[in-house]
Amino acid sequence: MAKELTARAEDYSQWYTDLVVKAQLADYSSVRGCMVIRPRGYAIWEKMQRTLDAMFKETGHENAYFPLFIPKSYLSREADHVEGFAKECAVVTHYRLKTSPEGGVVVDEGAKLEEELIVRPTSETIIWNTYKGWIQSYRDLPLLINQWANVVRWEMRTRLFLRTAEFLWQEGHTAHATREEAVAEAQKMVGVYAKFAREWMAVPVIVGVKSETERFAGAVDTYCIEALMQDGKALQAGTSHFLGQNFAKAFDVKYADVNGKLEYVWATSWGVSSRLIGALIMTHSDDNGLVLPPRLASVHVVIVPIYKTEEERAQIRACAEGLLEQLRAEGLVAKFDDRDNLKPGFKFAEHEMHGIPLRVAIGPRDLANGTVELARRDTLEKRSEALEGLAKRIPALLEQMQQDMYNRALGFLESNIRRVDTYEEFKQVLDEKGGFVSAHWDGTPETEALIKEETKATIRCVPLDSTPEEGVCIRTGKPSHQRVLFARAY
Amino acid sequence: MAKELTARAEDYSQWYTDLVVKAQLADYSSVRGCMVIRPRGYAIWEKMQRTLDAMFKETGHENAYFPLFIPKSYLSREADHVEGFAKECAVVTHYRLKTSPEGGVVVDEGAKLEEELIVRPTSETIIWNTYKGWIQSYRDLPLLINQWANVVRWEMRTRLFLRTAEFLWQEGHTAHATREEAVAEAQKMVGVYAKFAREWMAVPVIVGVKSETERFAGAVDTYCIEALMQDGKALQAGTSHFLGQNFAKAFDVKYADVNGKLEYVWATSWGVSSRLIGALIMTHSDDNGLVLPPRLASVHVVIVPIYKTEEERAQIRACAEGLLEQLRAEGLVAKFDDRDNLKPGFKFAEHEMHGIPLRVAIGPRDLANGTVELARRDTLEKRSEALEGLAKRIPALLEQMQQDMYNRALGFLESNIRRVDTYEEFKQVLDEKGGFVSAHWDGTPETEALIKEETKATIRCVPLDSTPEEGVCIRTGKPSHQRVLFARAY
Repeated sequence: MAKELTARAEDYSQWYTDLVVKAQLADYSSVRGCMVIRPRGYAIWEKMQRTLDAMFKETGHENAYFPLFIPKSYLSREADHVEGFAKECAVVTHYRLKTSPEGGVVVDEGAKLEEELIVRPTSETIIWNTYKGWIQSYRDLPLLINQWANVVRWEMRTRLFLRTAEFLWQEGHTAHATREEAVAEAQKMVGVYAKFAREWMAVPVIVGVKSETERFAGAVDTYCIEALMQDGKALQAGTSHFLGQNFAKAFDVKYADVNGKLEYVWATSWGVSSRLIGALIMTHSDDNGLVLPPRLASVHVVIVPIYKTEEERAQIRACAEGLLEQLRAEGLVAKFDDRDNLKPGFKFAEHEMHGIPLRVAIGPRDLANGTVELARRDTLEKRSEALEGLAKRIPALLEQMQQDMYNRALGFLESNIRRVDTYEEFKQVLDEKGGFVSAHWDGTPETEALIKEETKATIRCVPLDSTPEEGVCIRTGKPSHQRVLFARAY
Repeated sequence: MAKELTARAEDYSQWYTDLVVKAQLADYSSVRGCMVIRPRGYAIWEKMQRTLDAMFKETGHENAYFPLFIPKSYLSREADHVEGFAKECAVVTHYRLKTSPEGGVVVDEGAKLEEELIVRPTSETIIWNTYKGWIQSYRDLPLLINQWANVVRWEMRTRLFLRTAEFLWQEGHTAHATREEAVAEAQKMVGVYAKFAREWMAVPVIVGVKSETERFAGAVDTYCIEALMQDGKALQAGTSHFLGQNFAKAFDVKYADVNGKLEYVWATSWGVSSRLIGALIMTHSDDNGLVLPPRLASVHVVIVPIYKTEEERAQIRACAEGLLEQLRAEGLVAKFDDRDNLKPGFKFAEHEMHGIPLRVAIGPRDLANGTVELARRDTLEKRSEALEGLAKRIPALLEQMQQDMYNRALGFLESNIRRVDTYEEFKQVLDEKGGFVSAHWDGTPETEALIKEETKATIRCVPLDSTPEEGVCIRTGKPSHQRVLFARAY
């Protein structure tokens, strides 16, 4: 089965698509740009959801649900917002079909909507229109709400998980009495995303703030986490926006402060999506298939019997069942792959493709010696292990794997952030090495656009932990007060 | 606050809407027929989701996600299906907006879809089109998949939770090698729904099979759970369909059996929706607000201090904090309502409106006596209780409440199933008492339609546990072989 994947070195993009399809994570559907998330892919999303949901609740947020449809006129209320989203909106114009004289069904022209409805590309407008009814005084603030939902952005070039017309996400929308509180919330939530990426996905990220050009349509500031894929391209993995009073003004949402004075409300919004699954794959997986950090795996251990006779098979099964029970007692999910008529090598390759973190193979000689063969998915390392006490040692081993995966990815990220001071060097690094390039920039959108046009690199962020440094812009030679991170990106 | 609700006896329908809005469960949105599910309502849905999801997984199902959009032509493939859904479909015709010279945005006519897309009203068609690629041989069966999703059915008359244009639901879609297996699956899942309704929602239900007229569009048989609301109207709370080979034939899905012979696949689908929240409200709630079965409550106990001086307040707070900790140790969620400037009576009414199962009030005299006042939301009964050991007694009390709520609703259901043998009596029972009417029917859709037209009553189901009985149809006098249950329904 491993042979089925295009090698990463040969064609990284094809490898990715092969893997997503052959590991049965997702499929393109017959609807242009829309994907089907298969059970193996959805199980990862469910683990992500559960974990993030608990983190949101720990930070005081509640879930709610807002309509899928947004009246067209709402989009126009915030000028930058409509500019950013109008070109990729699916539009509902009718609410009924009728049978056609030629067979099949056609749109019933008698059922045309007075005002067209947009399928939400994001929900700021419908939510702030609702918040107007919920917020009267400072006692109603802060309002800390999250929504798990599907959204649609009509994309011309799609790629499974990374960019599809419909995707799954969560969007937090909060309302605050002061600018300071809203900024703190936006920063807190990008911090939650960074923690989740690092500790659960084993994906190291840079936390930063976007340039004006890369900002969310309607935001005052966009905070982000940026990750680095194995092919040297960056991937934006989550964003958190300080929206100022833009949406409060667009939808006239004011609160009475303690003195009864009316003020516009301050806002944030923040989101991560099923795109995270793409980031996970492109950070850890290999030419054999998916490599999953143990904390996001639904099955932790698979046991494969190796036998010639039915008698051996029965003995191994008895041994495996004991081990399964011990593993379950450790809170782990383990499976025994006793399928008939399949060679062990075939099973090994399949479990590697599916990314099960640990494989235990048991043969007749193992039974005699009280051993098993234990294989790590991340390193592909195999070793003989005593069966005695094995189940008790596995949780620590899985934690070790989680750490090792993070450290390996962190090493890759750190060794792929390069400081350059000339445009020549900048282009050379992008072409020959990829990764993040730390460089001076004069701070203007014009220069940013020029660099993007000439090199396909965009400003990913100004890292939050960066320090001011005087220098000159690599492109224009004009003065610059800090370095920013450039990269070619997904 | 209690005064804010219209009394049930006065106007049941208005009471329901008042309650949903004032208990902050949901609101109508500015999008016609679409609702906003507020945090208090969504918390109930989340509890339902978690519980049902675990039940689906225990019965071998996995979650996946299929596209929101369905190509228009797919709907037409199954003749009954398109007939059932065509008249309530939201249709996407364009994928871009553009700025209008007059300001605002307009649909970009240059971005018209070649084939219109339907916003899914249910997903049989897109899923069976996908299954075609997943099912080759008997080894791929059974395929047991569930999806949590939003769906849209354009309804003319809407009511919060019960009937809205967009709603949240789950839809199971399974594929089987044999008719027997598929029938067993459809029956198993209606059994899961009945268990959930009874044991978690404390809602007694009748499990039955629908008449041909009331069947799902495209099903061979529709199993259902039917509940009875306080006003004597029935409510369909969940359905499970045996689809035969209808969708397999429409989408050409065949599997090779053990001998390599190609056969059409057998199918089921089954779903429950956010409508369940409506059923919950109309089964248990009262003129003071929401009454929630403890197993679906997010907060189990609220503690309200009653004091005159700040010294008393501090003493009560210390006592309450000890109790909170003990309650948490029991795995319960408890809150201390120490809000300033609000009278205890106001707080009591608010917590009753929100349906918190137990209220503990503590005043200075309680402190002196080592007692508290404990109030049950379901019965509104108050009694003095020793503080000592209180937290340890509460889990059993909550279980008792759960049982009592079920038994009360069961008593109401059982006393509202009436056997009648004449059409006069039938109409009289419907008009004067409501509830389910068990009567003979000649088995024809024509008579069913006539009865519906004349009495507004529909056949809710043939209970699965009913026994054949010879008789004559109440409307036509023709022979009948079993009684069916009629009711006016939501």
